[in-house]
Amino acid sequence: MSTAPRSGPLHPASAPGDQLSLRRANLSRTLGHLRAHGPRSRAAIAAGTGLHKATVSSLVDELLARQLVQETGLEYSGTAGRPGRAVALDGAGVGALGVAINVDYIGVHATDLAGRVLVERRIAFDATAGGPDRCVAALTEVILEALRDLERRGAVPVGVTVAVPGLVDVAHGAVVLAPNLDWHDLPLGPRLVAALPAGLRVVVDNDANLAALAEHTYGVAAGTRDLVYLTGEVGVGGGVISDGRLLRGTDGFSGEVGHLPVDPAGRRCGCGRTGCWETKVGLAELVRAVTPDRAYGLESGPLRVPEERVAELHRRLAAGDPVALDAVAEVGRWLGLGGAILVNLVNPRVLVLGGYFATLAEWLIPAARPELDRLAVAGRAAHCRFVASDLGFTAAARGAAGVVVDRVIADPTSVGSPPDTVTRVTAVRVP
Amino acid sequence: MSTAPRSGPLHPASAPGDQLSLRRANLSRTLGHLRAHGPRSRAAIAAGTGLHKATVSSLVDELLARQLVQETGLEYSGTAGRPGRAVALDGAGVGALGVAINVDYIGVHATDLAGRVLVERRIAFDATAGGPDRCVAALTEVILEALRDLERRGAVPVGVTVAVPGLVDVAHGAVVLAPNLDWHDLPLGPRLVAALPAGLRVVVDNDANLAALAEHTYGVAAGTRDLVYLTGEVGVGGGVISDGRLLRGTDGFSGEVGHLPVDPAGRRCGCGRTGCWETKVGLAELVRAVTPDRAYGLESGPLRVPEERVAELHRRLAAGDPVALDAVAEVGRWLGLGGAILVNLVNPRVLVLGGYFATLAEWLIPAARPELDRLAVAGRAAHCRFVASDLGFTAAARGAAGVVVDRVIADPTSVGSPPDTVTRVTAVRVP
Repeated sequence: MSTAPRSGPLHPASAPGDQLSLRRANLSRTLGHLRAHGPRSRAAIAAGTGLHKATVSSLVDELLARQLVQETGLEYSGTAGRPGRAVALDGAGVGALGVAINVDYIGVHATDLAGRVLVERRIAFDATAGGPDRCVAALTEVILEALRDLERRGAVPVGVTVAVPGLVDVAHGAVVLAPNLDWHDLPLGPRLVAALPAGLRVVVDNDANLAALAEHTYGVAAGTRDLVYLTGEVGVGGGVISDGRLLRGTDGFSGEVGHLPVDPAGRRCGCGRTGCWETKVGLAELVRAVTPDRAYGLESGPLRVPEERVAELHRRLAAGDPVALDAVAEVGRWLGLGGAILVNLVNPRVLVLGGYFATLAEWLIPAARPELDRLAVAGRAAHCRFVASDLGFTAAARGAAGVVVDRVIADPTSVGSPPDTVTRVTAVRVP
Repeated sequence: MSTAPRSGPLHPASAPGDQLSLRRANLSRTLGHLRAHGPRSRAAIAAGTGLHKATVSSLVDELLARQLVQETGLEYSGTAGRPGRAVALDGAGVGALGVAINVDYIGVHATDLAGRVLVERRIAFDATAGGPDRCVAALTEVILEALRDLERRGAVPVGVTVAVPGLVDVAHGAVVLAPNLDWHDLPLGPRLVAALPAGLRVVVDNDANLAALAEHTYGVAAGTRDLVYLTGEVGVGGGVISDGRLLRGTDGFSGEVGHLPVDPAGRRCGCGRTGCWETKVGLAELVRAVTPDRAYGLESGPLRVPEERVAELHRRLAAGDPVALDAVAEVGRWLGLGGAILVNLVNPRVLVLGGYFATLAEWLIPAARPELDRLAVAGRAAHCRFVASDLGFTAAARGAAGVVVDRVIADPTSVGSPPDTVTRVTAVRVP
């Protein structure tokens, strides 16, 4: 309830420790300003950040030494001060790695500091066969390969974030529960740290939260301050961005929409409960509903990446198969009901449909929208709409890589060395 | 996703406009510091806020002139600097008024800047009889009486916030929809402004949001950074505090828990939908369930304040009436189911039961808790518990008064005059 302003990074410090954190905060402020506004002269950075020009010069020197910015050679004349040589975000030598594991694939996405994509791939993988040990081994292998790819591209990996469809204790890197992977209390972070090159920072986080961050930054609803992302994978997860910030909840377990109890008279869910939303809108229900005549199990057939898994559903719907159309409309109506729960509770501007939902959005949204308007208390006054993500199945891995970039922006001193020592970016080297 | 730090109020400004806002921010910072930490010397304020000592002296002079702080006469020697005379929050001359209207009462709560209660009352009032016009007239009358009370106490009213059980467009002071009051698109704020003394700032806001703020500040769960407050009035509303901040949503319509669709096979709700949570746990259901044998309508009998309305329910439960006990247990189980939706979505540490829920908490919680643990995905790992509010039916009005206080803390220049002009607090005078 307090509206007292918080300490900003310009807070004058008295203790020496505060001087260091002030320097770090101002480096971060400068780097963040360049990310948000593009190339600018030192004078323009000073005007835009409120820092003194002499301070900005010193900060830019350090960022140059750490190879996080570069001089562009362009003359920049903004509204403030004399024109000067523009400084731009660089960090081409910084590799940020995001990895997402799901029931049927492992996705990889790596960028440099400026967001240029360095590695992007998806590997079909049956995460339910062989238990958690095999998953940890597969993740290790995929990450090591990506680290080698980054090295080949001249980028030194500064960290990896792993996206998991489940409840994650982020502080300990532990997956408390991932129902669809059948993981319980798996210390994934520590096990990856033990298997990966020393010094590489490993973070484990919830896939829907990371995907929501990616949508908020890069997706169709980028910049929207209030959105909910729905994963639409074999399980259904949610990530809530409220007033521009990820809503994490007290344990980091927010956005667990898949097991919202929506129908006391409904089917038994894989989790043991009855009438969970996932039993209405999850992939298993979608497949059962749209292709009731086929043995189209998640288990059968060769390994496929998710797009291939929904190809048959898509074909039938596109062909106008009435059974398939009726069935997907029913799934859409339940999507609308769950959407109304989200609108009533967190009142987002946009519900972003990810994964399978996005692939089938042209059939799902027309059925979901009227239900949403009917069941949301604010109705159409809530101005909330469903939109299909265009990040496909890469959203979680993108968000995961983005978190690594954010960490460098938040603490530029974590990369490279200051001017008076070594000037090469020093981070983890892959053996 | 950006982790770049925001501008703090100490941001060095270049334009003259920025100098004024910097001064305002630093006055606010000083006042907020005194509210949070109690009486302190100027030197201790400087050390605690990071402001220069000379700046603090000037700021305190202005706050003294505006009668928002006072010198206590105590010598204060903190850890920093020489001992000096302590400065303390005063504002005894500032009256902050909160008013809550509900289906069966109007509540009033007014404090001074330091939170000392100046006025507190509840008036039985049937808001559904006579339509919105009669409600506006009654609210006007109640507010005018409270303003006179404040004057008599020597406090000049600086604003009133009105809490309404419905969807509120805070920016325009308009109630979009209050189902249980049968209000639709009522411009309550502008109508009160027209009827009240000129210059009095009027704000209209959702009652559950305001109650959640009060709980966060004064209640049993004070300080908990993640909580949900449930109003437990004739309607059921919710207010969500996430990471220490009120979650408002994009239109300010968040926390509308009463009409969460929880049972497609359920009863028709007053709102026209089917199986809303309110049909399971609202007061009407509670009364129907616990005293099925009596014509105990909301309409019948003399006007009563809410506590009297639940006295009969309470008596039967305390006497061990098996029908009543079974019935309230069923309501408790539905409370647990709705709680699980909240835990899955926003993962609060505490679910605060307000209003009728609090009154009957000793019977509701034992039934609700196991359902919550069973239905929440994280189960007991979510560490969420139900607690009964001890603010009774005053939570919304308290929160409403608190918002007025917060506004003065956020902009101390809105009250009184700076040192070189007049020194008396000047705000609204009641005719």
